[in-house]
Amino acid sequence: MGLRSEETLLEMKNLSELMVDLAYSALLYNNREIAEEVNHLEDRVDELHESLLMQTLKEVEEKGCVEKALIMLRISRSIEVIADSAKAIADVVLRDVEPHEVIRESIRESEITITLGRVAPASILANRTLGDLNLASETGMWVIAIKRGRRWIFGPDENTMIKPGDLLIAKGPLEGVRHFKRLCSSADKEL
Amino acid sequence: MGLRSEETLLEMKNLSELMVDLAYSALLYNNREIAEEVNHLEDRVDELHESLLMQTLKEVEEKGCVEKALIMLRISRSIEVIADSAKAIADVVLRDVEPHEVIRESIRESEITITLGRVAPASILANRTLGDLNLASETGMWVIAIKRGRRWIFGPDENTMIKPGDLLIAKGPLEGVRHFKRLCSSADKEL
Repeated sequence: MGLRSEETLLEMKNLSELMVDLAYSALLYNNREIAEEVNHLEDRVDELHESLLMQTLKEVEEKGCVEKALIMLRISRSIEVIADSAKAIADVVLRDVEPHEVIRESIRESEITITLGRVAPASILANRTLGDLNLASETGMWVIAIKRGRRWIFGPDENTMIKPGDLLIAKGPLEGVRHFKRLCSSADKEL
Repeated sequence: MGLRSEETLLEMKNLSELMVDLAYSALLYNNREIAEEVNHLEDRVDELHESLLMQTLKEVEEKGCVEKALIMLRISRSIEVIADSAKAIADVVLRDVEPHEVIRESIRESEITITLGRVAPASILANRTLGDLNLASETGMWVIAIKRGRRWIFGPDENTMIKPGDLLIAKGPLEGVRHFKRLCSSADKEL
């Protein structure tokens, strides 16, 4: 079995973890932007689920290894169900009905939130590495994932370069969100 | 609607997040101990799901608020499905068939692992706070959750006291696992 089906499964796993995290955050902060991102992610997981099925069947045809294919498909199906459920949670935010304040309070346990920021070409974050920026220490917001075009970078490290157009997913204290978003949009020019 | 149904939902959310994390780790390291813990957690989530249904129906009978009840139950159902899926992933480890090495490699992306440690009465961790022990800095392993009897403590902080009999869920580098487990069992007496 080639590298491709394993890479597909890895991406599915990473996306599903991110989706659960984002879905609860969308609910917690009644944040439509994050809820909509969960929707996009669910489409992507569905695509990958289909690709994995195709890849796995081809590999079985070529090389056998039915047992391994069964395991891959069982895991893939479970991941896809997790993604569906995360979407269902985020959908609560997207429906007309406003989630009751008490529900949000009930799942609010810390002041750590998730936020999204789109990097403008003129942003001081653009074309610099996370290590160079020292963003987490300077602003309290740490980047947990980056969406670049259709591709995702999970667990970026100090060598990861931020590019114009990147969608940054960051965690940090509520009071850091505004500054973070302004840094991304280039409204703020200093860390 | 009283505090109880919100508390139930909060515990379900926390458990489901932990389950997804543990399920992938069980698969990654072919770890039956962690997979079995996922099984126990799934039982607990099922119980909570049933309790929440009962609490919500009673609250609707007493006070109305049907819309809120619908949202609570919709979220609860999604969380329960996430828990089921995490269990299905962990079950791959518990079945007779050995997950193929390549599958584990495919979801291995970092050297960070999850491990469990049961605190013996004679362990140097017992009856001390996480802040006092400075466990994360000293050993590289940080405690993300504690199971005490049937109760769970999520996101313990420096003031959290470790007690004999606690089951610690810790994250850290692979090479820190053995020392961490020996500290818990009291085989090692120094951090």
